[in-house]
Amino acid sequence: MKNRWAVISTWKMSQNGCAAAAELLGQGGRSGDAVVRGIQDVEDNPDFHSVGFGGLPDEEGNVSLDGGFMDGDTLRFGAVASIQGFRSPILIARSLIQNDRNNFLCAKGAEDYARMMGFEERNNLTEEIRERWKKERGRDQKLTAYDGHDTVCFAALDCYGTVSAGVSTSGLYLKKPGRIGDSPVVGSGFYADSRIGAAGATGVGEEIMKGVLSYQALQMLRCGKSAQEAAETAVKELTDTLVKRNGHADAMSLILLSKDGSFGVGTNIRFPFVFADDHHSPQLYLAQAHGSHCMVEPVMDADELTED
Amino acid sequence: MKNRWAVISTWKMSQNGCAAAAELLGQGGRSGDAVVRGIQDVEDNPDFHSVGFGGLPDEEGNVSLDGGFMDGDTLRFGAVASIQGFRSPILIARSLIQNDRNNFLCAKGAEDYARMMGFEERNNLTEEIRERWKKERGRDQKLTAYDGHDTVCFAALDCYGTVSAGVSTSGLYLKKPGRIGDSPVVGSGFYADSRIGAAGATGVGEEIMKGVLSYQALQMLRCGKSAQEAAETAVKELTDTLVKRNGHADAMSLILLSKDGSFGVGTNIRFPFVFADDHHSPQLYLAQAHGSHCMVEPVMDADELTED
Repeated sequence: MKNRWAVISTWKMSQNGCAAAAELLGQGGRSGDAVVRGIQDVEDNPDFHSVGFGGLPDEEGNVSLDGGFMDGDTLRFGAVASIQGFRSPILIARSLIQNDRNNFLCAKGAEDYARMMGFEERNNLTEEIRERWKKERGRDQKLTAYDGHDTVCFAALDCYGTVSAGVSTSGLYLKKPGRIGDSPVVGSGFYADSRIGAAGATGVGEEIMKGVLSYQALQMLRCGKSAQEAAETAVKELTDTLVKRNGHADAMSLILLSKDGSFGVGTNIRFPFVFADDHHSPQLYLAQAHGSHCMVEPVMDADELTED
Repeated sequence: MKNRWAVISTWKMSQNGCAAAAELLGQGGRSGDAVVRGIQDVEDNPDFHSVGFGGLPDEEGNVSLDGGFMDGDTLRFGAVASIQGFRSPILIARSLIQNDRNNFLCAKGAEDYARMMGFEERNNLTEEIRERWKKERGRDQKLTAYDGHDTVCFAALDCYGTVSAGVSTSGLYLKKPGRIGDSPVVGSGFYADSRIGAAGATGVGEEIMKGVLSYQALQMLRCGKSAQEAAETAVKELTDTLVKRNGHADAMSLILLSKDGSFGVGTNIRFPFVFADDHHSPQLYLAQAHGSHCMVEPVMDADELTED
């Protein structure tokens, strides 16, 4: 057992969850448990409109959720896509790592599995969000970078040297029914390998998947870059590639944790995240792209930082 | 326009499709069209029980299909997972690359999209396969490497320098309803980048996804390995990693085509594939793992090579 532990999570909404995850890791808890605890805090909060309860619905007004989990020791993963009516996609996703096969389930198949396993059911569409959807559905609007794709991602290292990654989201607001974003897609939305580190991505999933972003950043880390260099270079290169080939690149951000507990962040927007380790209590930071690099600064007054 | 073109495809069942794809490429056709033509030939043949018509069903007796397509110039992709009742998953997947978002659709959402777009419907469960399923369902059997996961993958380079990759499969025999394998998952089942090359994977999807195999092989190619070195090293390293960490590794095979038209194959089983280019008519080969390398030999009498 080493003393070193660390956890990083996406967006300001993950502050409470990150504190809970840090507490668990500080008590010698496992990284997988910390990731799940942190994400569940966000899933259960109706004030966060891009994850779990209170999440934004698809075109037809249904809240369908994606989640993924990976264990860095075994490379086993579990994922659910387009699942409706359950409280915690991350719990369901994590349970699937026990299977040798059938680790990634979607839609009715995922719901039947979750029901059979006794996972808690919940209608995730709140009255507030239903009213908003009724007003905004059908508008021929161009969805912008902040319109409901703030996926919660956690990456954690425990004092046994195991890294884990997890994600949970309601996906793109007004998405087509059945749409799968990057979040439940191993390599794009998340990846974890205890020999290297763990990563998670948030932003427009269709862009993130074009570059298999989480896996790519971890390969850069493996090849000798620092965690910060790997994260910012992966996002910058993919952004530049998409601009060059398609004329534009949508929002994407990445959190990365190395196996030695150092962290890195890459983004092409304004991106808040939270980090804690055995020497630092949970702290909210703001990352912003700045030329080839990513500027990271602690946020001293969290109340002044708005996300929506 | 260069004169160079090339196409590679998985399994003996792709022989006819590969010949059709080669003919198209030789006439100056585009790699995306060649990939789709090759795959459709396999989808439509009821004698091949792992793809399209005549495909093997899930636990409940339903044939649900996965497909994916990627254009190497733009990195745009389209994919469908767990779709039932349509003739050609590859056609539906390819049509989705036109969208800016919602490129990856599953289950009922994918079916609603396909119906709206007017794609041809078809019941893919043949009487022969229904009888087989009735006998074999519910058996507490350990599915082996050849039990219905022979995904058809095509990777092609056209004379304009564009590479494309495509895949189509009915997935694992007796899979859980809603199960998504590697095939529709960008990075794992397929990937294409005209700066590097194109790749596709076949085998046990849950193992392939643990190593994001198609993307990983292309990164090795990008970093200076030859196509053959990249393909065999990617499969060997993932196989060794899984054996080391989990005690075993299931079947996986990979085809790879570099942007200059050279091909590579990696496998940890006995794996037939087909290759053609502007100097070679379509030829069936057999690849087999041999220590750290992969031995590749032309098959002179295709009738003697059985796949099932």
